[in-house]
Order: sequence, then structure tokens, then C-alpha cells
Amino acid sequence: MNIEIVALTGGVGGAKLALGLDCLFPAGRLACVVNTGDDFDHLGLRICPDVDTLMYTLAGCSDPEHGWGRADETWSFMRVLESLGGPGWFKLGDGDLAVHVERTHRLRTGESLTAVTACLARALGIGTVVLPMTDQPVATRVLTTEGRLDFQDYFVARRAEPRITDIEFSGHESAQLTQAVRSALASPGLQAIVLCPSNPWLSMDPILSVPGMRSALRSAGVPVVAVCPLIAGRSVKGPTAKIMSELGIEANPRSIAMHYASVADGLVIDAADASWADRCPVPTRVTPTLMRSLEDRKRLAAETVAFAASLRARRDE
Amino acid sequence: MNIEIVALTGGVGGAKLALGLDCLFPAGRLACVVNTGDDFDHLGLRICPDVDTLMYTLAGCSDPEHGWGRADETWSFMRVLESLGGPGWFKLGDGDLAVHVERTHRLRTGESLTAVTACLARALGIGTVVLPMTDQPVATRVLTTEGRLDFQDYFVARRAEPRITDIEFSGHESAQLTQAVRSALASPGLQAIVLCPSNPWLSMDPILSVPGMRSALRSAGVPVVAVCPLIAGRSVKGPTAKIMSELGIEANPRSIAMHYASVADGLVIDAADASWADRCPVPTRVTPTLMRSLEDRKRLAAETVAFAASLRARRDE
Repeated sequence: MNIEIVALTGGVGGAKLALGLDCLFPAGRLACVVNTGDDFDHLGLRICPDVDTLMYTLAGCSDPEHGWGRADETWSFMRVLESLGGPGWFKLGDGDLAVHVERTHRLRTGESLTAVTACLARALGIGTVVLPMTDQPVATRVLTTEGRLDFQDYFVARRAEPRITDIEFSGHESAQLTQAVRSALASPGLQAIVLCPSNPWLSMDPILSVPGMRSALRSAGVPVVAVCPLIAGRSVKGPTAKIMSELGIEANPRSIAMHYASVADGLVIDAADASWADRCPVPTRVTPTLMRSLEDRKRLAAETVAFAASLRARRDE
Repeated sequence: MNIEIVALTGGVGGAKLALGLDCLFPAGRLACVVNTGDDFDHLGLRICPDVDTLMYTLAGCSDPEHGWGRADETWSFMRVLESLGGPGWFKLGDGDLAVHVERTHRLRTGESLTAVTACLARALGIGTVVLPMTDQPVATRVLTTEGRLDFQDYFVARRAEPRITDIEFSGHESAQLTQAVRSALASPGLQAIVLCPSNPWLSMDPILSVPGMRSALRSAGVPVVAVCPLIAGRSVKGPTAKIMSELGIEANPRSIAMHYASVADGLVIDAADASWADRCPVPTRVTPTLMRSLEDRKRLAAETVAFAASLRARRDE
């Protein structure tokens, strides 16, 4: 592999920046290490929400309205499933199902999630290398004031409403860094590692919980730059700010920087948060981080990469 | 169970008569014992073509054009599956998939095919009792001049073109009669057993190959009436006549009666075949058997039941 950028990402928010990076680099030069802590078995199918959101986003076939699933989707499956008394809380589009069925079938025949994902990404015409964080099952579970909940029960069925007291990544102790992730991080041409603006607690921490991941990031010897998922104390989408509040953490860039303290060398923060720049424990780059258009995504991606280059230059001085 | 009629049936042709019978009897009085020799695993899903064709036919949601699958179907799954490099030869509609996914999931959790089918049929609003011929896997395979072929490879992928030399029902030796089939055949109010006009070699023989099935039919103590699937030496749909020719059997009602000799007490034949009536080894009833309309189906069903009643009366004399 001749990877220049490794991006760690979850679903929607992270995938937006990943698309920006994907536009900047030729095929095979960007690798995305994706959260699989949200993965679960549903109706006997293995569902990988973040991997799929990223793939659909990079392939240009994601549903712009929902933030998950495919554009131009049909819903006959769900309609019939519910009429048969099947569960309706997790929406599976008809086209989306092809990915789940094909993946589940190939996993059952013994292929690794990494191998299956590579095939799916290739079939979807994606040039970027899409790498599940591990091939072993890791399941994010939240401890809430209503008890322990599986991630999708919390996030989809309960719409992230229960109050979180703690988060665990079940199985992470026996998860292994894949050879593909190892190789990507050891690429000789690697310039930077980017922590995309996904939820640090729910989407990025599972990735960082894989044994060996943190040290592999450090050993890569390139700047690790995080993009703050908050703007003016609020999350753009999803429950980041809500969860921070529940965990007793102030929703500001400094808290994000502190959370990533042992991993990130720099933090990209929004112009609205410029006043926080001096109060962060790492160097910051202040720039608009709201990604509405594809141009926004590319600009933020370029800014993030440039920031990493400046950190590298500073270190080399 | 208070079953009055047990019908043995395969897919399309048999399901037409089953619908006619279904219209004649109140809910819970007709039981259909269905061929599962065509069942197979595809993409990790358990597909039961004849069970589904029968269920969709009885539920009034079958595709009248194809003769399989659901009416008003969408095809997003197949479109995406093929774009991912998945197999396109077996068409799975989006709504149809809900049945396969739900069934496969429940079979994996340990439910029997009989139990899952009962739930699906109930959810589809079917009053007739739909019974798989057995809960154990039996796989119809054809020996052809091109070698041994799995049934769907032969029937769908190869469009029934290879020349058949023999037929086997793999696994039938260890298949067991289900308690549900046993109970249906032992119902005190049972009036008749109907062999629907499905392919005798490919659809009915697998049912008859289940150990104990033939003796259970005999022990039922009611007339067993077959409806001839041929009209003027030709099959209405499907390869019955072609297969008979390949096996060196003349395609006429007498051959069908001979084939069912140890099972059937009478044969319903088409008006076009009236001249064969005297040459059959069992009593015959001559009547139009082509089922174009729902009225045709009901009329043939009524005629078949009346024929069985006349055989019963004759025996009781």
C-alpha cells in the first residue's frame, strides 16, 4: 500500500470529511479506518452501519436526506416484513439489503470483514481503501440510567434519548489490529492521520479501543490531527454534545482536545470557537468546519491536511 | 385439526387447483402438503419456491405474469446485488426477500419449517393449512446427459433444457413425516386426498418419497384422486411432457395413472383426453382441466371433490 493519509471515522459526520479527503487524493492514497462498534446482527444479517454509510458516501449513492442508507431507495422489503410481523424499528432499504445479504453470506463462508469490505468497496467503484477497525466483533454498549443498552437499541430504537452514564466496547480486549490497518499506518509515504469529526465517545473511542491501535498511530511517526465535531458547543448532527453533558464534560473544543490528548497532535476547530484556540492543550487550526456542500468538504479536508503538514514542518525544524 | 381435504401440491399448476379448493372450504378445513424438494440455500437464505408460490397464490398476492414471486414487486435488491457482482440467475423480489429473510432467521433459531410456514401463512391471512412435506432437507437432483444438476440449476439457470435420465431426492431416506401432516391425514372428517396437477416426477414424487407418506395416504381411508397435469399430450406449463418423453414415457393420461398406480384411486382428465378414459387403470372423471380464471379453478376443485365423493360412495356400496 502507498497510503498518504489515514482517516479514522465513524458514520455521517466523519464520512463527510472522508469524502472531502477522497476528492483530494488519487485512488489508493487514502485509507479510512472505520468504526465497527455499531455493527450488529439483525434478522440474521450482519449490519455494519458506519462502514456502509462511508461506502455509500464515497460511492456517491448515499441518501442525502436521512444521512444513512442509499439514495433512490425502495422499501418493499420493510413493508412486507412488517406485514409478516417482523421488526420495523431498523429500516433496511431494498438496495441496501443486497449489501447486507452479500456481506453476511461471505462472512459465513469464512471471509474476513476486511476482505468482504474491500470487495464491496471495489464493486461500488470506491478508490479509497475502506478498512474495518478490526475483523473481530466489538459491540458498543451504553450504560444508561435505564440500564445497559446495545448500541442500536440506544441509538435507533430509543433515538439516543436515555441518559448515558458509561460506555463499553464489548469484546475489544480480544479484537486484533488487522494486517491491512497495520500496513496502511506503516506506509512509507504516509503524511498524516486524521480523526474525522465523528462522535469521539461513540464512534472514535471504539476504534482507539482496539489493542495496538493507539501505539500503531503513534508509531506511524506522522502528525495526528483531529477535527472537532462541535461548533459553538453544539454537535452538527448526533448526540455528541448531549452525551458530553451527561458524562459531566463541558461541550467545547478544549474537552475534545483533552479527550484526544494521548492521540492527537492538533485540533481543527470552527471559526465560531476561535476563542478556545489558546485554551486547548494542542495546537489548533481555526477554520469553518460546517460541511454543507461538497466544496465545504474538500476545503476542510485540504485545510486539515495543510494543518498536519504545518505540524510536521514545525516538528522537523 | 378438522381437515376435510388434503391436497398434495407443487408450485404453479398445483397451486391453481389449491386456490380453487381454498375457495370451496372454510378456513382450517383444507390442508396442502407442499413439495420442498425444490428448496435450496441461496446467498445464505433458505428459499422454498413451492411453499412460497402456494402461499402467495392463496394469499392473492402472487404475480400472475411470472407464475412465481409477488405481484407489484420491486427489484432494487437484484439491481444492487448484480452491481456488487452477486449472482443474478435467481430473481429475488424486494418484498419476496422479506419472506426468505424472516424464514431463514427463524429456522436458524431452531424453529421447524412447519412452524415458520404456519406463522408466515397466518401473517399472509391464509386460512388453509400449509404444510411442508417434511422438516428435513430433501433436495431434488436431476441426472442429465450433462451430468447431475441441483434442481434450481436445472430448472431456473438451465431453463429445464438438459435431457433428464433420472431423478433423485437426496436426503429423503432420513426425512420424516411431520406430526402436522400425520394429523391432517388422520383427521376424522377427512373426505378426500387430492394430488394436484403439478409435475408428477419433479413435484409430486418428492412428496411421495418421504418415508411413511404413501402408507399414511393409504391409511387415511379416503379416496385419493389425482388431477392429470397433461392436456392432449402437452403440459399446460412446465416441462412435464418434455421429461416424460426423455424418460421414454408416452405423454398421456394413462401414463400418469400408471405412475400414480399405487397411490391414486381415480384420475381427473381433460375433455380433450376423453378417449383415454377407458384405457386408464383407475376410474376417471372427464372435465375441462385448463384453469384460466378463478371460476375455472373453483369449478375443477368442486368437480375433483365430487369425483372423490362418487368413488367413496361406490366403495361404500
